[in-house]
Amino acid sequence: MPHYKLIYFNMRGRAEIIRYLFAYLDIQYEDHRISQDDWPTVKQTVPFGKIPILEVDGVPLHQSLAIGRFLAREAGLAGKTELEQCQVDAIIDTLDDFMSRFPWAEKKKDIKDQMFNELLTHDAPSLLQDLDLYLGKKDWFVGNSVSSLRYHCSNAFKVNFIFVDDNNDNSGSDNILYIVKNNLKNNRQPDLVSKPTSLEQD
Amino acid sequence: MPHYKLIYFNMRGRAEIIRYLFAYLDIQYEDHRISQDDWPTVKQTVPFGKIPILEVDGVPLHQSLAIGRFLAREAGLAGKTELEQCQVDAIIDTLDDFMSRFPWAEKKKDIKDQMFNELLTHDAPSLLQDLDLYLGKKDWFVGNSVSSLRYHCSNAFKVNFIFVDDNNDNSGSDNILYIVKNNLKNNRQPDLVSKPTSLEQD
Repeated sequence: MPHYKLIYFNMRGRAEIIRYLFAYLDIQYEDHRISQDDWPTVKQTVPFGKIPILEVDGVPLHQSLAIGRFLAREAGLAGKTELEQCQVDAIIDTLDDFMSRFPWAEKKKDIKDQMFNELLTHDAPSLLQDLDLYLGKKDWFVGNSVSSLRYHCSNAFKVNFIFVDDNNDNSGSDNILYIVKNNLKNNRQPDLVSKPTSLEQD
Repeated sequence: MPHYKLIYFNMRGRAEIIRYLFAYLDIQYEDHRISQDDWPTVKQTVPFGKIPILEVDGVPLHQSLAIGRFLAREAGLAGKTELEQCQVDAIIDTLDDFMSRFPWAEKKKDIKDQMFNELLTHDAPSLLQDLDLYLGKKDWFVGNSVSSLRYHCSNAFKVNFIFVDDNNDNSGSDNILYIVKNNLKNNRQPDLVSKPTSLEQD
């Protein structure tokens, strides 16, 4: 078993999907969390000056989605065939496109709030509708079993502070979408302090 | 051999990497190019209302990078080991992060020009320096042979209208970076109408 060291801030953010997959794989890893004060020093030492980084026996891997795909293959969650693997990948990239549109780094609170609100009230329902259409009558987005997509969905909707029912969060089929969609449909306000799970230490 | 149908606009954009990989694989495919006028109708028929779409025997695959990874695996260009595959993936995602920051859809020409100029004169050299550091003394970014990264690099720098020497563009090692970097270092102006290659029909 290689030695895994995950380097990220003390938050969920872009490392959480990696932590989810380690939890699923039941693999021990070093969850190295750095402070904002240490960041300028650490930044100099990592490829492309960005985190998360996953060191595998000292070899640094970067980019959270690439690391996620690497672990998903190890976990047998990447899709059963080449075609399924592409379909899983594609939906993950679609979710990531959505998440990347949030102005995480915006300093002005009123602008940030307004943009978050617009994305959550206009764009999120449209994305969920597309996901729903893609899911159709099937139980699973791709193939006939769980894939890493399950964790990406859960993570995306949590990171975006949309309320999700934790009881349905880590098991079962893809029906997390219905929960999220119903929350949006009923104009339920996003839960701005999402509930911690056992995976979260921050 | 499955029937492949690529659906995109009559331009390079996000479909070009797929065309590059088909050219490398020497696989015939239907290069279905739609007009802007037809787009609203086509949009209704494709998953998530976005193109490119690659239909494989009628099964629609979306997201250009996911399709690229699918074809790269078929071509043996995805990386020789799981670790290498992750490294190739990660650099491709890094390039994509950079490309996604260009304001492609900005309508105001002066704002668009200014943002392009900033990205090309400040961010591009910094990215190239990081890539250069990652490449180090090696001939190849990852492992000891060509990967799909070669085509992503070539495509990224072309799509971003940075001058590249076509003679060195489709063969050889990763030294395209040196060419691009030297152009930037010498303040060579981006070639706003990049040269067409045999792969481009627009």
